[in-house]
Amino acid sequence: MEFNQLIRDIQDFPKEGILFKDITPLLGSPKALVAAADRLAAVSPEGISIDKVIGIEARGFILGSMIAERLEAGFVPVRKKGKLPFTTKQRQYGLEYGTDVLEIHTDAIQPGDHVLVHDDVLATGGTAKAVCELVEELGGIVVQCNFIMELTFLDGGSKLKAPIQSLLQY
Amino acid sequence: MEFNQLIRDIQDFPKEGILFKDITPLLGSPKALVAAADRLAAVSPEGISIDKVIGIEARGFILGSMIAERLEAGFVPVRKKGKLPFTTKQRQYGLEYGTDVLEIHTDAIQPGDHVLVHDDVLATGGTAKAVCELVEELGGIVVQCNFIMELTFLDGGSKLKAPIQSLLQY
Repeated sequence: MEFNQLIRDIQDFPKEGILFKDITPLLGSPKALVAAADRLAAVSPEGISIDKVIGIEARGFILGSMIAERLEAGFVPVRKKGKLPFTTKQRQYGLEYGTDVLEIHTDAIQPGDHVLVHDDVLATGGTAKAVCELVEELGGIVVQCNFIMELTFLDGGSKLKAPIQSLLQY
Repeated sequence: MEFNQLIRDIQDFPKEGILFKDITPLLGSPKALVAAADRLAAVSPEGISIDKVIGIEARGFILGSMIAERLEAGFVPVRKKGKLPFTTKQRQYGLEYGTDVLEIHTDAIQPGDHVLVHDDVLATGGTAKAVCELVEELGGIVVQCNFIMELTFLDGGSKLKAPIQSLLQY
């Protein structure tokens, strides 16, 4: 599957000077959607049991649930501040300008849970790092962080302790 | 599957006086996650081919992709204003106070496409109605709108022309 051909370059989005990688053609292809989830559910070491798959709001929700199904795991949403209704743990993380806050339900991860963290893009790694810290704070073990694409020139992987998998590298 | 036992009542969220129905226990159960997607992919008339499944941002993304896989359809995100990078069609819809705008990519639906619209909750129906109108504007045919739960006392179903399916009714 040539995933790369289903990623569309959008010039100057969300602002001038940015070349945005649009994943909607990939999601819109029935075969690519399934193949992407298959590939991202191939966790090593082979046979390791995953208890929870985290999808990071919002695009991480799309393949996150499909990966969870393949691994017979539960799906856990990590969301922006104020969106989750039950008691939460919060983590601030850095953006290009300023900071934002991510939350996870305190009962979403049980101590000792094996967790896979999924998002669509690994950029600077700030978001994924915050999510891994939330998992660890709840006693979980991050087995893998995976992404549809990795912007390798931003070196986000250096912020993450867990192994990384991505379908595409730019 | 007793989905109802996996919905948690949260008092006074997002504001005082609201009893919020929290779906995260359902999503966190591997069996319920799969059973919910199975049920919501049972579209009638049986055997009708679905080309695209729309998931409405953000919680509609979670089961939307799983339903798309079951129907061998593409997945299409409908998002809040400013989030989709390519050219879009927009629709304003009413909220309790004021209005908001939803967008779809102009190339997401082809004329004649059979479309299933999925969201987590059917409340007043304003959101789903706006999405159906966007689909029709692009020449698509909404075959079904489906939801994890329907708040029947708000009568949102009366706003929708397409058949409705929901796992839970309150």
